[in-house]
Amino acid sequence: MKCSICKKNISFYHQRHSGLNFCKECFVKYIKKKVRKTLGKNIIKQNMTIGMGLSGGKDSLVMAYILNEFYKPIPNSNIIALIVDEGIEGFRKDGVNMAIKFCEEYDIAYKIATFKEYIGYDLDELVKIAKDKNLTMNPCSFCGVIRRKILNKMALNEKCNYLAIGHNLDDMAQAIMMNYIEGDVKKLAILGHDANNPMFVKRIKPLKYIPENEVLLFADLLEIKYHKAPCPYSSMSYRAEISDIIDKLEENHPGTKYSIVSGFEKLLEYLPVEKEMNVCKYCNEPSASEICKVCMFLEKLGILNV
Amino acid sequence: MKCSICKKNISFYHQRHSGLNFCKECFVKYIKKKVRKTLGKNIIKQNMTIGMGLSGGKDSLVMAYILNEFYKPIPNSNIIALIVDEGIEGFRKDGVNMAIKFCEEYDIAYKIATFKEYIGYDLDELVKIAKDKNLTMNPCSFCGVIRRKILNKMALNEKCNYLAIGHNLDDMAQAIMMNYIEGDVKKLAILGHDANNPMFVKRIKPLKYIPENEVLLFADLLEIKYHKAPCPYSSMSYRAEISDIIDKLEENHPGTKYSIVSGFEKLLEYLPVEKEMNVCKYCNEPSASEICKVCMFLEKLGILNV
Repeated sequence: MKCSICKKNISFYHQRHSGLNFCKECFVKYIKKKVRKTLGKNIIKQNMTIGMGLSGGKDSLVMAYILNEFYKPIPNSNIIALIVDEGIEGFRKDGVNMAIKFCEEYDIAYKIATFKEYIGYDLDELVKIAKDKNLTMNPCSFCGVIRRKILNKMALNEKCNYLAIGHNLDDMAQAIMMNYIEGDVKKLAILGHDANNPMFVKRIKPLKYIPENEVLLFADLLEIKYHKAPCPYSSMSYRAEISDIIDKLEENHPGTKYSIVSGFEKLLEYLPVEKEMNVCKYCNEPSASEICKVCMFLEKLGILNV
Repeated sequence: MKCSICKKNISFYHQRHSGLNFCKECFVKYIKKKVRKTLGKNIIKQNMTIGMGLSGGKDSLVMAYILNEFYKPIPNSNIIALIVDEGIEGFRKDGVNMAIKFCEEYDIAYKIATFKEYIGYDLDELVKIAKDKNLTMNPCSFCGVIRRKILNKMALNEKCNYLAIGHNLDDMAQAIMMNYIEGDVKKLAILGHDANNPMFVKRIKPLKYIPENEVLLFADLLEIKYHKAPCPYSSMSYRAEISDIIDKLEENHPGTKYSIVSGFEKLLEYLPVEKEMNVCKYCNEPSASEICKVCMFLEKLGILNV
């Protein structure tokens, strides 16, 4: 089968929802072009500092690879990798090391922060405390809010204009679907809109229209060495259940992931943006409510230092 | 196990999402009360005519049973059953007969209309024409729009204030989820809002918060004789796939169906209502676009009479 784009080379990938066949070269170009279009000219320009959340997994490294290519030639703009070590025994150190190696290979500046230094506990310790107190808490949900808070702080320290997160199309569709099912309109609005607050660095998701399988293909084609092990906590997650459902739907109806995400973005235009933002009464950081989610969680565990 | 409500009788049903146990008597009262609350005082009052779409299935008959009890004692209010015969060989006649028997048993007025007299073709004929022309069309989707149009006409003829439809919580959750997945914001808004047009009878869904299994229990407890056969076209439906997904989610996370529907209703408050409504250029009936869906479909089949 010939490539549908260049009509010359042999195709190596058939994109089901579009019916197109891609050769390796055209596929790499296509992905970069799609990311460029997702970001737009207001983000890829001079005098920008882009912080990038880097876990060492395929998504964040593919994102960093592409952003590095975009920003390297632009005067007065730069990217910086922000690496968070949550403290997950037998898992995270490998990811952090792959992230560092990647940055060194591509000459990208990076900073590392740990849960331990920011909130006093590793994720493993938090999970153990919750277990000892018989609290049924999903590690993913609190890991997420803590990481988010730390990344924001790091991005503020580095004076970043934007914080880039490596969420791919699958991640987006899953998060949206989870919120549809939970029926939480406020969370849906937050998922799509960034709060208007100078203490909160606006987030961008360069890979939000690239499905996971294409991120993987891209990483393999460009021989990007990423951390392959899944997080030991991920199987406990509600997200895994939703992910299976959406994968099956996509198989039966190619284009489903994209329609979930693009439909949500249209819906977002009607949802209110939280104009005001409070400040957490414990940590003084921006928060949608009186107490931020991280402090709320630490309070529940009985380990909040105030 | 004792009933959680009266604390006396033996319970016969455990409601998973609430943890409550019900005896038969308290369950019947509970369902009626929930339907009464769903409708509210602006609908259950004097000088009302309520048309009820009656298929002969469990949902529409349970709805008619409850509405009959509500409206019988109210002066100057009445209900009328609107029965549509789509023309589905070996299926619909049984349903229509059960609906008629039910109306006669409970002394409810009724009217019958057929696809044949309204648009010139049975559903079976339409499906055959589509097949012969190699058009891949889902029978459920066009059956739905035609039935909707006929029910509206019947309700207008009978000067109904409202048209009651027997959709239960499962039906609602499925329809909402299908629209979330398709990402069609306009259809989502239409699903929740009635168009503001005197040619369009406002629809109410008395059972929208009652899950299908509870409708079934209610029907069995009150020995309502309903049409049990599934529509021969239903297995071909995308809806069946979504229904399986939601059932599995509900099993793992009791309360899921309710949170999908209540979340959607909160979301609806932000979605725009179609203020203006056009008139179909072919049939002169209210339509969201220049040509109504029924005429659009007949045109596609090459059988539109203009």
